[in-house]
Amino acid sequence: MTPTTDETAVEAANTAFYEALENGDFETLSDLWLADGTPVTCVHPGWPVLTGRGEVLRSYALIMANTEYIQFFLTDLRISPAGDTALVTCTENILSGGPAEDGDDLGPLVGQLVVATNVFRRTPDGWRLWSHHASPVLAETTGPDTGEPAPDDAGPPL
Amino acid sequence: MTPTTDETAVEAANTAFYEALENGDFETLSDLWLADGTPVTCVHPGWPVLTGRGEVLRSYALIMANTEYIQFFLTDLRISPAGDTALVTCTENILSGGPAEDGDDLGPLVGQLVVATNVFRRTPDGWRLWSHHASPVLAETTGPDTGEPAPDDAGPPL
Repeated sequence: MTPTTDETAVEAANTAFYEALENGDFETLSDLWLADGTPVTCVHPGWPVLTGRGEVLRSYALIMANTEYIQFFLTDLRISPAGDTALVTCTENILSGGPAEDGDDLGPLVGQLVVATNVFRRTPDGWRLWSHHASPVLAETTGPDTGEPAPDDAGPPL
Repeated sequence: MTPTTDETAVEAANTAFYEALENGDFETLSDLWLADGTPVTCVHPGWPVLTGRGEVLRSYALIMANTEYIQFFLTDLRISPAGDTALVTCTENILSGGPAEDGDDLGPLVGQLVVATNVFRRTPDGWRLWSHHASPVLAETTGPDTGEPAPDDAGPPL
């Protein structure tokens, strides 16, 4: 299907979000988060919920300070606008490295498999992030009976 | 602040969602998910993204079949309606047990700390779930310099 105008615009905002992270561009990242007074929320993989622009943006400043290199390969991108809100889900195949500890330019690179739900709101200035929730995919085994993924180590999966 | 009518209604829908899970009430759970053609999405802790009512509801049928007992103690509940969408974040303090394997009534109980972002849409029949994303909280240490949570074992937290 041909994407709608909304889908194209939301995809551009979503791409800009990950590019800002890759570029360590804090200002662009800040501009992409909703600033109309609606409280924004953010969950980094393994973290508790962060609420409000102050808390969310501080977490990104901290992450950027501790990340020398990061690249996102997005797959399974799905965009679903409804009215003034749009829901985006994607798989973030992440390759990243922290600062080196012993004189090298870069610390060891680490690969991570993360899934994200990003919620955007329509504003006069374009689509802006209302919520980002990212979480580690802990296993990708497939249950023999159901075809559903059935991670062994995730506990009761609710 | 006194909650608005929307906040009260969204909280009731969110409570009903967790009660349906506690009661193993698949029919009520199904009714709580959006059924207007907008694709719903769901991420269980450690799982990849599930998309569409069929995939999402099958996962709950599977989970219910493998869960003998489950109870949710919700904390940090925050409700933020905007137009016809509402964002809910909460901490799910989960106590659960699978079927016993050796003649006992119930397997060992397991505690889990999970955070969730739930997105609801307003419909003529009330607020319905559009997206549920739940993820394990892997650590709750607090960074000494920033006051931000800084899990050691979560990798680069994006």
